[in-house]
Amino acid sequence: MRSMWAPSGVEPVGPCVSTEIPGPVSKRLRAEMDPIHQTTSVKFFVDYERSFGNYLVDADGNTFLDVFMQISSLIFGYNHPDLIKVLSDPRFISAAVSRPALGSFPRNDFAPTISRALSAIAPKGCPLVQTMLCGTSANENAIKTAFIWYQTQKRGGPPSAEDLVSCMKQEPPGTPNICVISFDGAFHGRSLAALSMTHSKPVHKVDIPAFHWPVASFPRYKYPLEKNVQYNGEQDNDCLAKVEELIERQKKAKCEVAALIVEPIQSEGGDHHGSPAFFQGLRDITKKHGIVFIVDEVQTGGGGTGSFWAHESWNLSSPPDIVCFSKKLMIGGYFYAEHLRVKEPYRIYNTWMGEPTKLILLEKAIEVIKRDNLLEQVRKVGKGLQSGLRQIEISNQFHSRTSEDMLVAAFNKKCILRLVVISLLRGDGSLVSKIIFGFLRPECNEIFQSANNSKMRNVRGLGSYCAFDLCDTATRDKFLDTAVSNGLHMGGCGDTAVRFRPALIFTENHLEVALDIISKSMKRL
Amino acid sequence: MRSMWAPSGVEPVGPCVSTEIPGPVSKRLRAEMDPIHQTTSVKFFVDYERSFGNYLVDADGNTFLDVFMQISSLIFGYNHPDLIKVLSDPRFISAAVSRPALGSFPRNDFAPTISRALSAIAPKGCPLVQTMLCGTSANENAIKTAFIWYQTQKRGGPPSAEDLVSCMKQEPPGTPNICVISFDGAFHGRSLAALSMTHSKPVHKVDIPAFHWPVASFPRYKYPLEKNVQYNGEQDNDCLAKVEELIERQKKAKCEVAALIVEPIQSEGGDHHGSPAFFQGLRDITKKHGIVFIVDEVQTGGGGTGSFWAHESWNLSSPPDIVCFSKKLMIGGYFYAEHLRVKEPYRIYNTWMGEPTKLILLEKAIEVIKRDNLLEQVRKVGKGLQSGLRQIEISNQFHSRTSEDMLVAAFNKKCILRLVVISLLRGDGSLVSKIIFGFLRPECNEIFQSANNSKMRNVRGLGSYCAFDLCDTATRDKFLDTAVSNGLHMGGCGDTAVRFRPALIFTENHLEVALDIISKSMKRL
Repeated sequence: MRSMWAPSGVEPVGPCVSTEIPGPVSKRLRAEMDPIHQTTSVKFFVDYERSFGNYLVDADGNTFLDVFMQISSLIFGYNHPDLIKVLSDPRFISAAVSRPALGSFPRNDFAPTISRALSAIAPKGCPLVQTMLCGTSANENAIKTAFIWYQTQKRGGPPSAEDLVSCMKQEPPGTPNICVISFDGAFHGRSLAALSMTHSKPVHKVDIPAFHWPVASFPRYKYPLEKNVQYNGEQDNDCLAKVEELIERQKKAKCEVAALIVEPIQSEGGDHHGSPAFFQGLRDITKKHGIVFIVDEVQTGGGGTGSFWAHESWNLSSPPDIVCFSKKLMIGGYFYAEHLRVKEPYRIYNTWMGEPTKLILLEKAIEVIKRDNLLEQVRKVGKGLQSGLRQIEISNQFHSRTSEDMLVAAFNKKCILRLVVISLLRGDGSLVSKIIFGFLRPECNEIFQSANNSKMRNVRGLGSYCAFDLCDTATRDKFLDTAVSNGLHMGGCGDTAVRFRPALIFTENHLEVALDIISKSMKRL
Repeated sequence: MRSMWAPSGVEPVGPCVSTEIPGPVSKRLRAEMDPIHQTTSVKFFVDYERSFGNYLVDADGNTFLDVFMQISSLIFGYNHPDLIKVLSDPRFISAAVSRPALGSFPRNDFAPTISRALSAIAPKGCPLVQTMLCGTSANENAIKTAFIWYQTQKRGGPPSAEDLVSCMKQEPPGTPNICVISFDGAFHGRSLAALSMTHSKPVHKVDIPAFHWPVASFPRYKYPLEKNVQYNGEQDNDCLAKVEELIERQKKAKCEVAALIVEPIQSEGGDHHGSPAFFQGLRDITKKHGIVFIVDEVQTGGGGTGSFWAHESWNLSSPPDIVCFSKKLMIGGYFYAEHLRVKEPYRIYNTWMGEPTKLILLEKAIEVIKRDNLLEQVRKVGKGLQSGLRQIEISNQFHSRTSEDMLVAAFNKKCILRLVVISLLRGDGSLVSKIIFGFLRPECNEIFQSANNSKMRNVRGLGSYCAFDLCDTATRDKFLDTAVSNGLHMGGCGDTAVRFRPALIFTENHLEVALDIISKSMKRL
């Protein structure tokens, strides 16, 4: 038996980039890959053995601080020593080479493993869990569960003989004409049904046939929230009214709504947030109409928002019916309420139904999160990240305005003196302006917020899942390229947004590095 | 660093069952699991650490010879030592704890790993490969690839601005009204789109909305094939004519056929085989109409049919456009022809796009298959399995008929003497009758084949993927229960079929054990 490889165990002291990105090695590897596999979306190749903690090392040896973490899917960054230890657990070994068809032949330790890995973090009101392989299969099976429940309720029991015969011809009543409401800007995966609920970007959807299911509007808030209370409240109300309207319209069209699916943060679509009031409204409407309320926490679940589930921050009067997960939680799946339990065998089923190796790793991850107080750390670093980004935003707005504009506006608001001081300090930038902005009166901030010609805007976040917008797609893309060439690897989303999806081990030290690079990169735009 | 667990390395000498199935431990574990996870389809719990080779050990310590192998998904059975060694490979370790989003940030060893694990077994004409996570995601992305190609051909280029705008409203031309032909009895997975191409059992489909795509007929042959050449040929022709008819009908209905998807053996649907002539006909029709020909080898790929791909036995005049795989090949994915390469980034994409740990295990598996000549072994043991099953079939038919019937029929066919001898030997059964049947004239066999009251019929197979039918569902289910209580774990499929899906390490010694238990179990029906 060979001894196990162990990574260095020490994070790099900071980023270090010495080639263009992608570098020559990445380019060569891409050329080698091209004859056997598509490469069009490859950014660069990664040396996963040398990457560690929050730092990614690419094939050219460049070292980046990674706050995107494989599209938000690495809970502890790279090569976490506690996870590596799990690989020598006999349970992991046998699961890795003797993978069960666990719907029929589960491992004898399946229940306690689920219990420690998943039930331990079950969202309130959803004691049952079903593991799957990825976010898309989680969502597919969540809506299937909803359809089965909806039809069972309607009939008052299991499928009739007529249902069983007609479904084989794909005719009603066995194949029902029912639907799911999803939202403009949503992303729920890329299978055909998931794409029918996805409305983020044309590149996801074009040329693919779709179910013609209704699409509701998701709020688009103005920031900062506290300055736009009325506008944002109207957004919520308008969007909720549209949902009610769609439910009625679908009833008339004889294609009733069985479920509604929504993300806490529309991530792929551009990091759009909804308010607790909006989500409470959705919960109320779905309850009123007997519609299954599905919260897609594939991206937001797992701790990055400062709690295991983003929807915990909504303080709902009654919990969601289904909560989907994947990414940071390593496997896919969904938690669901007892009333949705499917009574007949083989209806929610497939060969693998998940992956025990991931479950065994996740069990350890949950233990480490608790042991190391990582949620507390995420909340703390998240606050720092949001306030740091707001300071850069304000600084950037200030830098973007002409001196004349600023002075006139500031004179009107009677904060001219401070502005003059800042103007004098413009040259050296962020640190000094950060301190000074801390003292600025809110009225003065407001001037900057209203600036139209600033490049960075709409800083927002929940825990460490923060984002901001840039003025257009080209500027956003240029910013991401500049940041990565400065050693910070971030993610884009929607048309103009930049998002943070750091691992749970992202600390205030990493935050400092990140903010400095962002500040520097903004100035180069 | 802890030392790694190693299993015994020795297969049990034979099956050993000492409790009812499921046993008391399985029942207790099921009760523990029920409050947190559905358990309706659980057969029994498995001790995967104690299982080894072709033998599965359940939670109660019962030992079964396993010819179902986790729904045909374990290539080397349980805890293969060569696969266990892979787990200490640094590539495996880093991949297991630092999972890449490999569409954008692949491992620096991705190309050589794919090359050794997959390109090494690429079907002729399909040099490109795309890894996914399971069979369903393979099929979903295969049809997406087909849709993208079909629309690109039709337009003569990438999507237009109109396409990109209209697809966001799910309206044509961006969201096209095009379809896939699938077959009656097919199984292609359980996502909504895959279910729309699945027509095996009502329990898969009922209550789930579907795409209204056309369904063709798959041949239903009479066995033995050599005695039913004309009937089976007509089956092929009728089914092919129906496909042509559907293509024309869809054109008129303004919902053109972009792809046709078919399994070499309709496994879930009841182990229905198609002839090389039938598949050649499908290839010709799809070529003629510019339709993408997708062969779903999720169950048949990986060596169990005696070659890496079941479609190799068809001797097609031109290869399939796409070949999907999963199960024994550990991950999901599809091979495809160069002309189907999608030129734009992010169209065939998702977070994980496969799983490098599986690819690293698969690399070793391909090496072992070649080193140990396992395909040769499968072909050899497959022949033995088919002939052994035919002998049991004939013996069973004989036992099922009344003496009078048999004697009269045999008299007419002038083989009365041999029949008398066999009649005398009826009591002790299989071994003696096997020897004697070896000498029987084909005319005499024919009598037995035509018997209506025999329970076992239609023995068929390709490599070790064999099957037979029993007279009805209740008898089939009783047979499976009897076999498992005798120590043989087999799979059911369709309404009345029993299928073999042994691992590639299934040898003639295991075959002897299996046939004896089948023979014994048949007699108890």
